[in-house]
Amino acid sequence: MSEREHPLNRLIEELKKLPSIGAKTAQRIAFYLIGIPKEETENLTEAIKDAKQSIFYCSTCYSMTHVDPCQYCSDPSRDNEQLCVVEEPFNISSIEKTGVYNGRYHVLLGTLSPLKGVGPDELKIEKLVERIKEGNFKEIIIATNPTVEGESTAHYIAKILNDFNVKLTRLAMGLPVGSDIDYADQVTIKKALEGRTEIKE
Amino acid sequence: MSEREHPLNRLIEELKKLPSIGAKTAQRIAFYLIGIPKEETENLTEAIKDAKQSIFYCSTCYSMTHVDPCQYCSDPSRDNEQLCVVEEPFNISSIEKTGVYNGRYHVLLGTLSPLKGVGPDELKIEKLVERIKEGNFKEIIIATNPTVEGESTAHYIAKILNDFNVKLTRLAMGLPVGSDIDYADQVTIKKALEGRTEIKE
Repeated sequence: MSEREHPLNRLIEELKKLPSIGAKTAQRIAFYLIGIPKEETENLTEAIKDAKQSIFYCSTCYSMTHVDPCQYCSDPSRDNEQLCVVEEPFNISSIEKTGVYNGRYHVLLGTLSPLKGVGPDELKIEKLVERIKEGNFKEIIIATNPTVEGESTAHYIAKILNDFNVKLTRLAMGLPVGSDIDYADQVTIKKALEGRTEIKE
Repeated sequence: MSEREHPLNRLIEELKKLPSIGAKTAQRIAFYLIGIPKEETENLTEAIKDAKQSIFYCSTCYSMTHVDPCQYCSDPSRDNEQLCVVEEPFNISSIEKTGVYNGRYHVLLGTLSPLKGVGPDELKIEKLVERIKEGNFKEIIIATNPTVEGESTAHYIAKILNDFNVKLTRLAMGLPVGSDIDYADQVTIKKALEGRTEIKE
């Protein structure tokens, strides 16, 4: 048996493909999985199968869901005038946890990235335009990440949506709450200065 | 369907049980798994099943192996006079990668931890003593982690092995190579001072 075909190495290679899992962690998880009772690994593999079978993208907003339309699109108590545009389905839960947003969502399923060959047609931008045309949105909050790719995607979308009668907003950039200004990078401090807000008593 | 029974939440819960995987990473991996083609998740679940079926502990040293005795125990080119004692099977590969050790191994499968109810009988200490009695070892390198639990385990083993005619050694503690002394903790600097070595031209 070659090193490559060794079942342990194959498992480590498969685990390394997962996001946020480096070589060390893959090895640690592989040994952990081999060490625990068979029933426990079966719980994991069954959970993966079940989730694959029953979860899909919402046909309206492209969040992950097990019913179509998803909980965010079908909830009548949510505000139909606000639409929050995010990169990935899991970004929604980060925004939901804040408890301050109660509008609708739209997931782009990525960001523009010429280097990776991701153009506008690979993202759910056409569907976004369609929803804005048909809907009654007053504000589109572009909540892509504050990265180079997230920024250029935000600008691209803003340009397209410029002709629509909607307010376009972007999440504020600045110092993270609880952080130390000495440890912040220059660009963040610049954004924090540019976006400074007035102190009101 | 309750929130808890939701296949996505169940998958996230299962992933959170894995070592080094927190809530955020579990969520990210779950969404990733749902998004990739079914064949790719099958590769992963099959790799887990295969590894579970074909990998077990070596009956001599308790490393993970698919043949018994394992590659380290059966290799005739390895030194029979040195034995390196480690906590977990995956520690072996860290030591192997250095390329400076060519002796045998013994895995304890844990550390002494009164708080977690792990006493000497839960570890492979008796088997270690047996191997030393029957073998021809001249040096036992105790390579448990430089943690409270790893240290107390090392001392416990050292006490037991005191009556044997073997040299007992411990991995050196000190400043990590490439680190900055200003960022090292007090205990590490203390160890680095105590273990200082003479500069020879």
